[in-house]
Amino acid sequence: MVKIFKNIAKLYTVSANGKPCKKGQEMQDAGLIENAFLIISEEKVVKTGSMNTYSETDYPQAEYHDCEGRIVVPGFVDSHTHLVFPRTREEEFVYKIKGMSYEEIARRGGGILNSARALTHISEEELLTESLERCRQLVEKGTTTLEIKSGYGLSLEGELKLLRVARELKAHTPQTIKTTFLGAHAIPTEYKENRNAYIDLVCEEMIPAVASENLADYIDVFCETGFFTESETERILLKGAEYGLIPKIHANQLDFSGGVKLGVRMNALSVDHLERITDDDIQALQSGETVPTLLPSCSFFLREPYGPARKLIEAGLPLCLATDFNPGSSPSGDMQFVISLGCIYMRLLPEEALVACTLNGANALGAGNECGSLEAGKRADFLITKPIENLSRLAYSFTENLIAETWINGRKAVFNPAFFQSVEKKGIS
Amino acid sequence: MVKIFKNIAKLYTVSANGKPCKKGQEMQDAGLIENAFLIISEEKVVKTGSMNTYSETDYPQAEYHDCEGRIVVPGFVDSHTHLVFPRTREEEFVYKIKGMSYEEIARRGGGILNSARALTHISEEELLTESLERCRQLVEKGTTTLEIKSGYGLSLEGELKLLRVARELKAHTPQTIKTTFLGAHAIPTEYKENRNAYIDLVCEEMIPAVASENLADYIDVFCETGFFTESETERILLKGAEYGLIPKIHANQLDFSGGVKLGVRMNALSVDHLERITDDDIQALQSGETVPTLLPSCSFFLREPYGPARKLIEAGLPLCLATDFNPGSSPSGDMQFVISLGCIYMRLLPEEALVACTLNGANALGAGNECGSLEAGKRADFLITKPIENLSRLAYSFTENLIAETWINGRKAVFNPAFFQSVEKKGIS
Repeated sequence: MVKIFKNIAKLYTVSANGKPCKKGQEMQDAGLIENAFLIISEEKVVKTGSMNTYSETDYPQAEYHDCEGRIVVPGFVDSHTHLVFPRTREEEFVYKIKGMSYEEIARRGGGILNSARALTHISEEELLTESLERCRQLVEKGTTTLEIKSGYGLSLEGELKLLRVARELKAHTPQTIKTTFLGAHAIPTEYKENRNAYIDLVCEEMIPAVASENLADYIDVFCETGFFTESETERILLKGAEYGLIPKIHANQLDFSGGVKLGVRMNALSVDHLERITDDDIQALQSGETVPTLLPSCSFFLREPYGPARKLIEAGLPLCLATDFNPGSSPSGDMQFVISLGCIYMRLLPEEALVACTLNGANALGAGNECGSLEAGKRADFLITKPIENLSRLAYSFTENLIAETWINGRKAVFNPAFFQSVEKKGIS
Repeated sequence: MVKIFKNIAKLYTVSANGKPCKKGQEMQDAGLIENAFLIISEEKVVKTGSMNTYSETDYPQAEYHDCEGRIVVPGFVDSHTHLVFPRTREEEFVYKIKGMSYEEIARRGGGILNSARALTHISEEELLTESLERCRQLVEKGTTTLEIKSGYGLSLEGELKLLRVARELKAHTPQTIKTTFLGAHAIPTEYKENRNAYIDLVCEEMIPAVASENLADYIDVFCETGFFTESETERILLKGAEYGLIPKIHANQLDFSGGVKLGVRMNALSVDHLERITDDDIQALQSGETVPTLLPSCSFFLREPYGPARKLIEAGLPLCLATDFNPGSSPSGDMQFVISLGCIYMRLLPEEALVACTLNGANALGAGNECGSLEAGKRADFLITKPIENLSRLAYSFTENLIAETWINGRKAVFNPAFFQSVEKKGIS
């Protein structure tokens, strides 16, 4: 079935003319077509253009949608989340307000290890139900593709549980989900005095098991002071690569970890966080294809510096923004808020923020040819806004959900069990 | 009809035992009753208590609501908004991103004067429709009482138009609305060389006209460097008082304006903004009943310092938080986000933030005996959350609407025309 969306006041295609991302100054161009049409067929985009060039007769059987007064943008691609987690951790948030240090909170059982402990007390079905509710809320906010990392298991069983649930989610939500094995998220308490044994476990047991069940697309390591060193990161990523897992790296959140240069050297899809960055890191990024990804919601929630978005763009790089949705440092998966923070706190233009949250997000998942822009042959994932006049409203109205309709794979998301396959009905396959 | 809400996991009454506000350390106590009931009759609260003391037989005819697993809090009272405005101003936001100065934006027609110009181009009916949609969204987010200021008219006709629309809103939304005359919001361009003539206009024409139509509860002045001086503010407020308008003051947003001490001296209900404050100001506040009101969304959006919330509480004062919803400096009316900012950026405990957004908001409107807490005889304005475990989730999940049901005047808000009287149906009375 061909569907034709007519009279779109402003259509932002985010087209890069076939390229998988936009870099530097190109990011200012979000492919705006005023008074536009969008034609899709089944799951794919067929064509976009100006209403002036539109001919009624080409698709006599089409279904028509009048978008008068609306803006259409590609669906948001959130390339960095930890969305499958056992429970929120608001009690640690209160400890922080009371002035407790990170170390003190850790002594009270806080942090990643808190989530790891909680994971052992939750059933796969419960975890799936809670994660699905998060996905559902994010469809309403416009996220059509997202990445989900493991990393709260920190044991063979726990990591597999998280990744199985993330895979199960694909059967229940229409969103496209990509998964990442992040066994190297932290050193579990019981390995504190024997970190090599944990790294052995990651490399020798977890990676082969994850690969044999085909549970992950990517592999990620928390390459940070106090977590995993550069050489440990390299060892883990190399082992992952043997099993076909494409590397990504968490780097430079807490310190200068060496993770950026390592990421470029290893052809990582992305290096994420980068609240701190050196000129050497930027030079390294310029020499490769690794996508620098900033996570402004995390900076907001932790009251930490925002990543150097303008600096990266001025260096001609392809900036990506993502939510880092997780219960410790970013309890929000809202890409509209990421756009707001990008504009208010990183001084991005709304067009740059949009590109960073769509096409460049897709590119950070190696999916720049599948989604992230509205170009012929790509997935028909797009958002129709409420009646607003300018793209900049998305950034400006920082607490308002301005998405009226989320279309995924050519279908309009409706919030009933036919669209979201309920866990009870569908069960765990 | 008596309605009984049973099995409330956590009921925060925010009771001050009959007092109209909570001050200093008292703010840490949000009147928590675990496993509680709440009884209302028609528009009023009758009783709250622990389920252990609950007796089924007292109200044989009652309607029952089971709140298992939910938290109940008083409806949010937003004591400072400019919700009736002609249009959003996202273009100025983009100018700011591009690095344009406030002066340059003003030269391009930005700022308050931009809204004043837009006001002349919008009909009363359109203004009402747009404002009602804002109210509707805020009901969903939990705001049950709000104040609305004029101040985008800056002419007799314009100010009356705004206040008439604000009054009209009361017929269309179930929320309680209080109105404030803020003719002294800025000096209009045509009076730039003759500011006294504008102040004469405010005092001699606007105030009597506003009072004769009974359009406002309060009077407010923007007592800031470049706007109105301390003595001009005094003159305007005194004139308002002659006509029964209770004073409020915008002070210390841009500079130390003297407005705080003036507010206390004039028995103002509140002094609002206070991003800057002196020890003298704090001493003055300690000597009176004027409520210091901070507006964190404004600080967030303008990247300005947050007000000294902890300092005010430590001085034993009754802190109030509000949104400052307006198109220039705070395009958000979301009180849940205000709670988040209060906790993340002002280091308030969730209980303190809740008190600041409910009872103390009511007190900043002189309505501390009508609403803001769940005590016998007060309006039955309250919120039932989604299934969350802790009050702190409201602050922690900073982009998630955690309100499942908003009850106003003893009725559950539903989003259909029977609850919101549509503008077409009801017309302008």
